[in-house]
Amino acid sequence: MNKEITARIAALRDAMKAADINAVIFPQTDPHQGEYIADHWQVRRWYSGFTGSAGALVVTLDKAFVWADSRYWLQAAAQLEGTPIGVMEEGKPEVPTIEQWLSANLKPGDTVGIDGMVFSVQAAEALGEALAANGINLSVDFNPTDALWSDRPQIPLDKIFIHEEKYAGESASSKISKILANAAAQGAGAAFISDLAEVAWTLNIRSRDVESNPVATAFLYLDPAGSTLFIEPGKLTDETIAYLAANNVATAPYYAVKSFLAALPASKKILINTTQTASAIAAAIAGTTVTGASPVAMLKGCKNDTQIQGVRNAMERDGVALVKAFMEIENTLAQGLPLSEINVAEILTKYRSQQPLYFDQSFDTIAGFGPHGAIVHYSATHATNATITPDNLLLIDSGANYLDGTTDITRTITLGNTTPQQRRDFTLVMKGHIALATAIFPEGTRGAQLDALARINLWKDGLSYLHGTGHGVGHFLNVHEGPQSIRLNENPTPLTPGMITSNEPGVYRAGQYGIRCENLVLTIPAMHTEFGQFYRFETLTLFPFDLALFDTSIMSDSEIEWLNTYHTTVRNRLTPHLSPAEQQWLNAKTAPLTR
Amino acid sequence: MNKEITARIAALRDAMKAADINAVIFPQTDPHQGEYIADHWQVRRWYSGFTGSAGALVVTLDKAFVWADSRYWLQAAAQLEGTPIGVMEEGKPEVPTIEQWLSANLKPGDTVGIDGMVFSVQAAEALGEALAANGINLSVDFNPTDALWSDRPQIPLDKIFIHEEKYAGESASSKISKILANAAAQGAGAAFISDLAEVAWTLNIRSRDVESNPVATAFLYLDPAGSTLFIEPGKLTDETIAYLAANNVATAPYYAVKSFLAALPASKKILINTTQTASAIAAAIAGTTVTGASPVAMLKGCKNDTQIQGVRNAMERDGVALVKAFMEIENTLAQGLPLSEINVAEILTKYRSQQPLYFDQSFDTIAGFGPHGAIVHYSATHATNATITPDNLLLIDSGANYLDGTTDITRTITLGNTTPQQRRDFTLVMKGHIALATAIFPEGTRGAQLDALARINLWKDGLSYLHGTGHGVGHFLNVHEGPQSIRLNENPTPLTPGMITSNEPGVYRAGQYGIRCENLVLTIPAMHTEFGQFYRFETLTLFPFDLALFDTSIMSDSEIEWLNTYHTTVRNRLTPHLSPAEQQWLNAKTAPLTR
Repeated sequence: MNKEITARIAALRDAMKAADINAVIFPQTDPHQGEYIADHWQVRRWYSGFTGSAGALVVTLDKAFVWADSRYWLQAAAQLEGTPIGVMEEGKPEVPTIEQWLSANLKPGDTVGIDGMVFSVQAAEALGEALAANGINLSVDFNPTDALWSDRPQIPLDKIFIHEEKYAGESASSKISKILANAAAQGAGAAFISDLAEVAWTLNIRSRDVESNPVATAFLYLDPAGSTLFIEPGKLTDETIAYLAANNVATAPYYAVKSFLAALPASKKILINTTQTASAIAAAIAGTTVTGASPVAMLKGCKNDTQIQGVRNAMERDGVALVKAFMEIENTLAQGLPLSEINVAEILTKYRSQQPLYFDQSFDTIAGFGPHGAIVHYSATHATNATITPDNLLLIDSGANYLDGTTDITRTITLGNTTPQQRRDFTLVMKGHIALATAIFPEGTRGAQLDALARINLWKDGLSYLHGTGHGVGHFLNVHEGPQSIRLNENPTPLTPGMITSNEPGVYRAGQYGIRCENLVLTIPAMHTEFGQFYRFETLTLFPFDLALFDTSIMSDSEIEWLNTYHTTVRNRLTPHLSPAEQQWLNAKTAPLTR
Repeated sequence: MNKEITARIAALRDAMKAADINAVIFPQTDPHQGEYIADHWQVRRWYSGFTGSAGALVVTLDKAFVWADSRYWLQAAAQLEGTPIGVMEEGKPEVPTIEQWLSANLKPGDTVGIDGMVFSVQAAEALGEALAANGINLSVDFNPTDALWSDRPQIPLDKIFIHEEKYAGESASSKISKILANAAAQGAGAAFISDLAEVAWTLNIRSRDVESNPVATAFLYLDPAGSTLFIEPGKLTDETIAYLAANNVATAPYYAVKSFLAALPASKKILINTTQTASAIAAAIAGTTVTGASPVAMLKGCKNDTQIQGVRNAMERDGVALVKAFMEIENTLAQGLPLSEINVAEILTKYRSQQPLYFDQSFDTIAGFGPHGAIVHYSATHATNATITPDNLLLIDSGANYLDGTTDITRTITLGNTTPQQRRDFTLVMKGHIALATAIFPEGTRGAQLDALARINLWKDGLSYLHGTGHGVGHFLNVHEGPQSIRLNENPTPLTPGMITSNEPGVYRAGQYGIRCENLVLTIPAMHTEFGQFYRFETLTLFPFDLALFDTSIMSDSEIEWLNTYHTTVRNRLTPHLSPAEQQWLNAKTAPLTR
């Protein structure tokens, strides 16, 4: 492999010299600014051999580095050993940014080359300005990869299919009208959509192009006079072509997008979002670009009644699958049979996939035993796969896409012995979970304002967690979506009725164990008073928290009451779908917690 | 008066016509972007007769309006009646912004005139861009007022005096070095300071130029080769000139600032803050301007040990004065003597001014009885002055500037009868106050993250308050200062050790009463764990909360314990300075709260 990587970098440098390029940057994304990307766009991985989910590769004529964040420092060092590529340990104070490093390692008059299809308008502009301050040029259409990567995978050719209105709750044409009305309010007569989840939501179409994300690789141009979906023809069928046509959406080949935009009349005003739209696409637009917020994000984020009822139904089926799976996990241990982290993930998928309307997992299951639970982005591999014992905590974060909704749940359980510290930590996490679950807040409240409710009890013990407390969740779509979030960082989007968000505080003791407790919650109206409109959360997820891990001495009466009420709801909703043995198991797991 | 206003607007329009100006904007500020301003800059008030503390006047050749926020809708309407000036009720959805209104009421090619000395760089640029989008020009040096306002008050000529290092805790030369080091880190070789509190803090000088704000009207240019203070010569004495010279600070007349900046070499790089620096001043700079955060705000915000000990001492004297004042208030009522809101303010000032190191009140006392307490910015006038009775709540928000520190305290008390709703509201406010007072939070935490801790109990009852929970407080300086805040809005400044911030949740029932409970708190280290550095608050203010207003049925044991511990501290700290009768009063006011 190292020889191949060395040869690829050498060939790249030949191409750079031929094009008078002194440095090139390969980011880990696709023309849709995706976080999860199809193999076709795994360009950084192909040049470097580094397989992390984030981190750019920078190559000059005599140096090459991958910028890896702390999750990937060790992995990048191992995978890049023996190649001409080094690791920049991003996040260390002495490690420069890519812009700083390029400015220090190039000279005025040099040129950096990028493929403008995988840089957003904003990213390309920021890079160009940083380089220009040092007299360095930026060429935005340097793409040597197609010529060098002879066996480059195709764009995925899975067929798209229609997400029926009985699940989506609104027709594509209705959504298009709303998007165009929003664009008009922003002064635009058309809108260009790059984000794959936004394209899928708008047209009520799905596919399997990205692992666990049921999206189709496509761009969407929306225009009152007729819209166009840019997509590989092999992904279409007569049925889907007719369906799109009925919504006044024509189709064109994926790579025809730039020539189409270049042929639009100059008078056309097209709304684009500068963080989502590729620089090369924006540059191709012949009309006037209006830059603004995506009209789709807020519409997609606020679920309609059909979607909400669908999620409630999906949560019941998911809860039933979890009862069966957790029973099997416990029974396996109880019988003294070996059980690994990978086995846990397999068991979960087995029972979920038996449920009606199941489509796929919504992300790779995280089953982290003991110290592995403390690695926030842990995913078991055959090299790390730990055997589960009664002597530590097991953290399981998993979810599924059903046609009627997406689930995402984390439970931390013991299979035997616990320590006072484990129970105290768990209970502090649950106090935060309950504080957020029971919050009531005025219209306009942002996630960052509520985030500390989930953290304050941990902070008072000198504990913390660095991930967000809550992310938006799609509807039979990506498990991570915007526009809202509940996290340390400011996000101006208010928590609005219909939004589904995770509630997942945690604590991670390196080398010992990790704890995370996650339900999904729906924002709903709470009350209207002389002080205005107030909202609250409805908890959607239906599965018990492990009673063996609570330390009731640090819980208030109302916290205990919340848990018991929640467990009663779980029992009442799931019991009708369970066998007598399963009912018995659930009864024990939802017995009242007492002091 | 109406005739005068009419004549002034007519004269203004003559001046506008002569200068080919189609509209003029008079904002309510000064060349230092001050919130509180000296009479010399009460230009909007002079032209319009409207005396509100905020709101711009816009005059075209045939129309004139004051933009007033909701606090001032009624007052503006009353004061502007019979003049050619109307009221724009800012905040109503149908009311346009000034930019929108000008764009709709002027035509392309027209010119708006402003005095660039009272618009910040940022404000002038934003205005210019908004107007340019509609083809309207902006002239930034239109200042007809000096010619029209023949008896315009002078810039205040009170002498400046030195704030001794035994109170300030750091010499001016040390502060100047730190500011210039910060400027250098931002790429600048000099710094220009416009904010009056920043000038006063940097040089350890004070004056009486703005009511309740002990500042001097001046600009400060800082340069390693020698600094210059621009100030009216009449404000200086031989002593203060020598003091400044010893800190390598020369003096020049206030209005020489622009010619001085215009004469600097082009190679000089000068740091300015675009929200603080006047547009006309930035335009005068011959060197290169480097725009960035003020180097002073963070240095000034984080108090040193001398300042902190000074504030602790000042709090004891303030608490003693409050004991005497609240005793007199109670005794007056108990004896059946009349007591008005203005009397309350007078009593507070009487006892505070008897304390050593007293300088002035730090803001106009708010004493609001019953419904007046629900008006957040209420200040009693002879027209509104209410008589206090035992039948409703009295809200008293007051503070003082002592040479060793600034105080700001709000107490809400009953002088007799209370209702269950009053006690519940008061206790919900106190639960928020206590939640913030006892918070522990990691390094980097911003005020907006903690704000909801003070509000969540109110929100759960459908109550809220729209003002901030906490503002920064100066040291023998302005009672409102940055850079930190604890409020609904995002503010990127982290709460940092040494910062003094108010903790003042409240609730206001229109037509009934207002409740606010305010102490000042100091950010201090709490602990260091494997999860990092944590901070907490030390409560500085020393005066009891009214025991008669607590509803212990909705308080946790730890909330009651916090109150009792706080009251014990108040008693222990104040008792040595009190007469036996005062001690007896305080003992009763700090008796343990029990269920």
